Amino acid sequence: MGQGENPVVRVTLWNEFVHERKDDNVRAIYPGGMHEVWRGALESYLGPRVRVVNAHLEQQEHGLTESVLGATDVLVWWGHAAHDQVNDLVVDRVVDRVLRGMGLVALHSAHFSKVFRRLMGTSCRLRWRNGDDQELVWTVNPSHPIARGVRTPITIPRQEMYGEFFDIPQPDELVFVSSFSGGEVFRSGCCFRRGHGKIFYFSPGDQEYPVYHIDDVKRVFANAVDWATPTLVLDDPYAPEYCEQDWFLAK
Amino acid sequence: MGQGENPVVRVTLWNEFVHERKDDNVRAIYPGGMHEVWRGALESYLGPRVRVVNAHLEQQEHGLTESVLGATDVLVWWGHAAHDQVNDLVVDRVVDRVLRGMGLVALHSAHFSKVFRRLMGTSCRLRWRNGDDQELVWTVNPSHPIARGVRTPITIPRQEMYGEFFDIPQPDELVFVSSFSGGEVFRSGCCFRRGHGKIFYFSPGDQEYPVYHIDDVKRVFANAVDWATPTLVLDDPYAPEYCEQDWFLAK
Amino acid sequence: MGQGENPVVRVTLWNEFVHERKDDNVRAIYPGGMHEVWRGALESYLGPRVRVVNAHLEQQEHGLTESVLGATDVLVWWGHAAHDQVNDLVVDRVVDRVLRGMGLVALHSAHFSKVFRRLMGTSCRLRWRNGDDQELVWTVNPSHPIARGVRTPITIPRQEMYGEFFDIPQPDELVFVSSFSGGEVFRSGCCFRRGHGKIFYFSPGDQEYPVYHIDDVKRVFANAVDWATPTLVLDDPYAPEYCEQDWFLAK
Amino acid sequence: MGQGENPVVRVTLWNEFVHERKDDNVRAIYPGGMHEVWRGALESYLGPRVRVVNAHLEQQEHGLTESVLGATDVLVWWGHAAHDQVNDLVVDRVVDRVLRGMGLVALHSAHFSKVFRRLMGTSCRLRWRNGDDQELVWTVNPSHPIARGVRTPITIPRQEMYGEFFDIPQPDELVFVSSFSGGEVFRSGCCFRRGHGKIFYFSPGDQEYPVYHIDDVKRVFANAVDWATPTLVLDDPYAPEYCEQDWFLAK
Repeated sequence: MGQGENPVVRVTLWNEFVHERKDDNVRAIYPGGMHEVWRGALESYLGPRVRVVNAHLEQQEHGLTESVLGATDVLVWWGHAAHDQVNDLVVDRVVDRVLRGMGLVALHSAHFSKVFRRLMGTSCRLRWRNGDDQELVWTVNPSHPIARGVRTPITIPRQEMYGEFFDIPQPDELVFVSSFSGGEVFRSGCCFRRGHGKIFYFSPGDQEYPVYHIDDVKRVFANAVDWATPTLVLDDPYAPEYCEQDWFLAK
Repeated sequence: MGQGENPVVRVTLWNEFVHERKDDNVRAIYPGGMHEVWRGALESYLGPRVRVVNAHLEQQEHGLTESVLGATDVLVWWGHAAHDQVNDLVVDRVVDRVLRGMGLVALHSAHFSKVFRRLMGTSCRLRWRNGDDQELVWTVNPSHPIARGVRTPITIPRQEMYGEFFDIPQPDELVFVSSFSGGEVFRSGCCFRRGHGKIFYFSPGDQEYPVYHIDDVKRVFANAVDWATPTLVLDDPYAPEYCEQDWFLAK
Repeated sequence: MGQGENPVVRVTLWNEFVHERKDDNVRAIYPGGMHEVWRGALESYLGPRVRVVNAHLEQQEHGLTESVLGATDVLVWWGHAAHDQVNDLVVDRVVDRVLRGMGLVALHSAHFSKVFRRLMGTSCRLRWRNGDDQELVWTVNPSHPIARGVRTPITIPRQEMYGEFFDIPQPDELVFVSSFSGGEVFRSGCCFRRGHGKIFYFSPGDQEYPVYHIDDVKRVFANAVDWATPTLVLDDPYAPEYCEQDWFLAK
Repeated sequence: MGQGENPVVRVTLWNEFVHERKDDNVRAIYPGGMHEVWRGALESYLGPRVRVVNAHLEQQEHGLTESVLGATDVLVWWGHAAHDQVNDLVVDRVVDRVLRGMGLVALHSAHFSKVFRRLMGTSCRLRWRNGDDQELVWTVNPSHPIARGVRTPITIPRQEMYGEFFDIPQPDELVFVSSFSGGEVFRSGCCFRRGHGKIFYFSPGDQEYPVYHIDDVKRVFANAVDWATPTLVLDDPYAPEYCEQDWFLAK
């Protein structure tokens, strides 16, 4: 296959989907769930080559069975109220699949999900405030594909504050840095490669503010899914590999 | 334009083109010049969306006029025998264009070209030996697009040795590391972002060995051109920018 | 305290200490255990400001009680035969302590220890061969404090081969890259910052070869302990931190 | 020499020293020149092991003769009004010395000095405003030696705004990120390794505001000089090095 052809990208949108069903104010912003807005973003910016399925906490195995993950190129993760309810076997399965090549886009409070923390190896702690700050999202890596076509700064009129020190490993590529009206800063767009998988963490997007309705936020999201798409997912989980002398000559 | 569409990539192949015309043994390996082999690699792996032009040292302004560079998305650079003969005004022009977004793929002894050294800010010194070493090129960043579809290791039966310490800035992304039969190692595939431009340095490829005829070397080359392609090249050269309070609200 | 003064560095040497007691050939190389050679290296290169204690797998809580870790500035970890026997509560305790600031020097097969894998978030898989390769350790970051005074290359006449792809996150700083006679390469000296702690992984050093008796290997080891020494270890484990507007003005 | 001993660090403070002599308001803040405040910071935090000399634009060879640089471990650079008056031969000399190991601490508007731009290879362009913003300097790398003992955030009540996009290579280590009242962010504390030399860029510090009188700014400055101190400066400038097979066995 030549690189000029763009194969189908299979995206699974994992939305915890608790707030939208319990809180009237959240449902007013996202009547169909946040995942419906993400789906629209992918359709607008990536077009017909994307195929999207949804998965939620309350489903059997949280909707992330072996067969679903086996048919997922990029997994999007949003969780907040129920990180602890995610089954550890599912976490193992997702982490294993990322190391074998599946892309992961972790949104907002997913910084504290089991999946993200396992892949980072750190506490992923941060400072926070629910105080109606304005957030400005600045591009610090203008040639990065995730910054493609994105205005700088993105202005988010009202948003939860996330502030440093954000306890993550130094990102392989830092794409966005945010400021908040209160004066805090945050590394809000971070790329990590883990195993054969690509991971993008993007902090804008709280359930109580209509952040995902902002055009440039949608564009970042779609760019991130595009960037995280693997070219190859390994069949087998990792194992140490014994290699005889000159093993590579036989390949 | 949706990101699913792949626009034309305009590639300028700058080959010093001295050895192939003076040395019989080099001409035997590359009868049409090394640039003909590179062109073939782009056609094989990137297909019809690439348009290629050639430029050489002996041409007026080395073939790199404002209008040629203005129509170049990715510039490939190979030089060895005549680094000093490259006019400083042309060097300024190329460096300026890279900072504004043009991609640059620097091959083999281009590590010592004026253009590459200016963009790195270091001496770009290395150890070397012409001793018929075997080079093995190992992928250390398997999810990187430049490693896509490339077998690891690439075996290069006979090759000039380039060894550490290679005096470059720490690469933004290290994709390949080579070993040589003599025991030396070399960071042989290195990504750098400078300004709005992307730069890839790839060391395999000497005029005296048929390295560019190896399939996996061609594939790395084509992947690198694809990766270095900009989405945007700035019109104006950089200048400091005075910004009134709230300048971004007017955007 | 001025920075000119060097306080005492409290080092805990965790050696699994299984091979030296079971295998005659290993005991012949390390009669007092590998930790005795490491202790000598610290005394030679860091002098009286280092205070060393030992800890081993067979001890209560593997010798890594809260009080021992509470009095440890840098923990050295060597394990190979019994990774699975390390209690998960002790692993949690060590990881927590690293994120709060304790340094960690992980040696050789500690790449596959629970502690190191948890902190990396990846499989830490690699290629390997027990085939009497010669290893050459090359410095690629000559101004790094861990490379201070170290000859390049370090020649290790006989050594187990560890080869790429080594499934770790991209190191924050890559200090050493090794080649093996069989042609493989390995990122053999890698720095990572996780939370408030500094981690150095150094691959040379197998139980079956007298690698830790080599002067330059000792020097790297001592430099690494020095580099990993924290200036501050946080009292409390990490928790998310709610911050009122202008919280920092009250500090 | 054991690493426990701290040898003398020879620091040369290069202050352009134009504003303090021409502008009454600047002289009111820095009656003896900014370099007198820097000297005090080094004496406070690094103590008697530092030996400081001054150098200025108006001196012969700008005070940076071969013999001065030959006796300099760390060079501090502050320039603003007269970047163009710095002689290119002196720039060559400084750059060469940095690549051979001398540390460089570049302060504030030194981002646009010939020396810094040559070492970065980029335009070093940024956004700016003289509008009495408040700057908050946040630590994003808490275990880094330059952040040692520094309160986060540092509050600078009035300061020139420097904003992204700051056209520098991705720093090897990002230590500080600033926000400004106007909403901009800036990578304000950046480490770079170039050749054998270490470079720290620190943006706080304008001639019109008393920034260098702030304790935590002084501490960052002293930490940076300490960090940038080399263990070794190469005698000879770099040249490519031809290496026979097995050259390293003879060492």
